Amino acid sequence: MTTDGRLLRGEQTRRVILDHAMNIASSEGLEGLSIGRLSGELKISKSGLFTHFGSKEELQLSTVRAGREVFIDAVIRPARSAPPGLARVRTLMESWLAYSERRVFPGGCFLFQVSAEFDARPGRIRDEIAAAMTEWRTYLESSLTRAVDLGDLHPDTDVRLLTFELDAYTVRANGYALLHDEPAAFDLARQAIQKALAAATA
Amino acid sequence: MTTDGRLLRGEQTRRVILDHAMNIASSEGLEGLSIGRLSGELKISKSGLFTHFGSKEELQLSTVRAGREVFIDAVIRPARSAPPGLARVRTLMESWLAYSERRVFPGGCFLFQVSAEFDARPGRIRDEIAAAMTEWRTYLESSLTRAVDLGDLHPDTDVRLLTFELDAYTVRANGYALLHDEPAAFDLARQAIQKALAAATA
Repeated sequence: MTTDGRLLRGEQTRRVILDHAMNIASSEGLEGLSIGRLSGELKISKSGLFTHFGSKEELQLSTVRAGREVFIDAVIRPARSAPPGLARVRTLMESWLAYSERRVFPGGCFLFQVSAEFDARPGRIRDEIAAAMTEWRTYLESSLTRAVDLGDLHPDTDVRLLTFELDAYTVRANGYALLHDEPAAFDLARQAIQKALAAATA
Repeated sequence: MTTDGRLLRGEQTRRVILDHAMNIASSEGLEGLSIGRLSGELKISKSGLFTHFGSKEELQLSTVRAGREVFIDAVIRPARSAPPGLARVRTLMESWLAYSERRVFPGGCFLFQVSAEFDARPGRIRDEIAAAMTEWRTYLESSLTRAVDLGDLHPDTDVRLLTFELDAYTVRANGYALLHDEPAAFDLARQAIQKALAAATA
């Protein structure tokens, strides 16, 4: 096998590990991850796992980074293809809800899950999660600002407040739907989003 | 010591255990609870803990029930003293935000924390949490309905949707404030609540 082949195989193994780690963490949290558990469930030697991640904390950090990439693919990418302005905001909201609703992760939004787990536990993991959440909030806020600039939303729109409201609806729908097996929560979120955007276009 | 004295001491011990368990769980989740850990941290024998709770799952369930009681004391009770209608709704919202803001629990809202932890893990613990959350949502919804009936809110108010919106704001502020050490999130929630209630009184 060539060096390139080994690199490729190493990358594939890393991918398999992180996919499994994200699925576990979306339901049970990052504390549910351990080198021993992943070794047993994936039939990869512990030393192989250590080669890739070095420690449980590195595995947790890598899992957060991988979760951020999945979120970008599922939620941000579709919005980037939509025209800027209100259409992009609507696509962003719909992508978010669909990402939770069709359970890209078995435990709903991965970032929400690990935020709740680590929000009161300062350290590198919380910092990594907070950075991903800020990135999302900043993207939503700038998309709304663009919609104001383009005249799609009223010039007096309080963009920071509207960002808070829209983010709150998506996150709450995710939590409701999971806790109560209640997919109707997504429809409530859609109504709330529609109402908030309609108020800002009036 | 009389039987009454022993009962009292037993009740006090149980209280000490549950207070400590709630504080741990609000930051680290219910999985952070174990008979061994509590025994070490509280200097109570493991057999004493087993007398009170029998198993880790019983301890977790009792901790959820205790968290529900704290929530009722901090959030529902002040609202019951307010006159019914819009004043009660406002008191309810402000009590909720204050309960998170002044950190009744070190990890913010206990019920939110354990909901996120167990929302994708069906079983007795999730059922207990879901019941407490439904109780809260039902109380908020009935308070809003009362405000409509009293003419404080517009008769066309979509009470189910407004309940969803208000609940979303409080929960989101709790998460923001913790993850980003950003108390300003509570002000955003207050603005969003004010905006939603103003729209329903217009």
